[in-house]
Amino acid sequence: MKIEGRNAVLELLKTDKEIDKLLMQKGAEGSAGRIFAMARERNIRVQFADARALDRESETGRHQGVIAYVSDYAYAELSELLAPKAGGRMVIVCDGVEDVHNLGSILRVAECAGADGVIIPKNKSAQVTGAVVRISEGAANHVRVARVPGVNYAVEQLQKAGYWVYGLEADGEDIYSADLTGDIALLVGGEDRGIAPLTRKKCDKILSLPLYGKVNSLNASVALGIAAYEAVRQRR
Amino acid sequence: MKIEGRNAVLELLKTDKEIDKLLMQKGAEGSAGRIFAMARERNIRVQFADARALDRESETGRHQGVIAYVSDYAYAELSELLAPKAGGRMVIVCDGVEDVHNLGSILRVAECAGADGVIIPKNKSAQVTGAVVRISEGAANHVRVARVPGVNYAVEQLQKAGYWVYGLEADGEDIYSADLTGDIALLVGGEDRGIAPLTRKKCDKILSLPLYGKVNSLNASVALGIAAYEAVRQRR
Repeated sequence: MKIEGRNAVLELLKTDKEIDKLLMQKGAEGSAGRIFAMARERNIRVQFADARALDRESETGRHQGVIAYVSDYAYAELSELLAPKAGGRMVIVCDGVEDVHNLGSILRVAECAGADGVIIPKNKSAQVTGAVVRISEGAANHVRVARVPGVNYAVEQLQKAGYWVYGLEADGEDIYSADLTGDIALLVGGEDRGIAPLTRKKCDKILSLPLYGKVNSLNASVALGIAAYEAVRQRR
Repeated sequence: MKIEGRNAVLELLKTDKEIDKLLMQKGAEGSAGRIFAMARERNIRVQFADARALDRESETGRHQGVIAYVSDYAYAELSELLAPKAGGRMVIVCDGVEDVHNLGSILRVAECAGADGVIIPKNKSAQVTGAVVRISEGAANHVRVARVPGVNYAVEQLQKAGYWVYGLEADGEDIYSADLTGDIALLVGGEDRGIAPLTRKKCDKILSLPLYGKVNSLNASVALGIAAYEAVRQRR
């Protein structure tokens, strides 16, 4: 997998993930120097090339002079996300988020809000590719992502482990009347179809944000950000 | 100006904005029927063409078979945003948001949270183009956007009108300890440079969201969404 862009590579270098090689543009300035120093310190092989070579290698078209080659994304096990934690756990479940920009934004939100992990299904969902890592500004390297055969299976496992599973969607209960302390999972639906009907039924509760405009929905990562930070507020 | 895409055009048709013409793809199905019916009801001229003609006309490349031609975006006057309102006003100020995706998302958030308006500077800022309207899912047609010569001027006018101006940025006061009732303005910075130093000084307070991860910032529209909804929560 390729990780492209300066922020994404910088965040990658801060982890202990294995990096096969770093491709850098000749004469790159600014944070490129810091990236080079960090790579040297970790004994990572750095290869210099001209802009055209990086353009050819780039999958996203936005490499900013730096491309890191890493082994495929290391997904976490679902069981790692279920381990008890003082103060309560918070897990994000994506049900059919197919847009890489949305998944990247969701991972960034999850990491900033201190979520314990993100669960995605193996099918009908964006996976954690190099583009997703880049869009997440490197957050994907820090937050644990578990892949499951299906979202309903994940919801059942979470409930067995004592989680309250909240679906985020219109026409639910007002989010500000809900107790978001303890072990909770916030479930967000895909771009077009929202949460699948059967999954919706499995949720312990459907929570909604008040909407005061004529446009009747927020973007998935914005809605998740608001819900996750309401949980943060309640937990402090 | 061209407004493209089904949701954006549907939202446009719900307003009383003047529409010069609607260009629709021959044989378009689904919500295209509803768009056609609404246009007929308002006596808007509808012209049918094949997909290639729409592709040629499209500025965003994502017309979904519908392009509306409207007069240039009708900006509001700053004074309209300052008029008193029961329960307090909430205005969003963008300081150098140059990315059209970010501006579109900010307008969508503003509309959903029931903000009274959005202020953008005339220079070094994305303007409300057809692409921004589309990205906002049509919210730009409902929320008032005022253009000002400069952000510092807007901050001064807001403060004269009794607003508390809160800059959203790292290293400020914890947002959950702030009083977000009454007349408030939430000021968000641009993608790269954040809030300009002089503007930051003019703010009554800098507010920050707690960040628990290693990635040290949220996307501007997500951060704004969390802050605006914290204001919503406190006001109810």
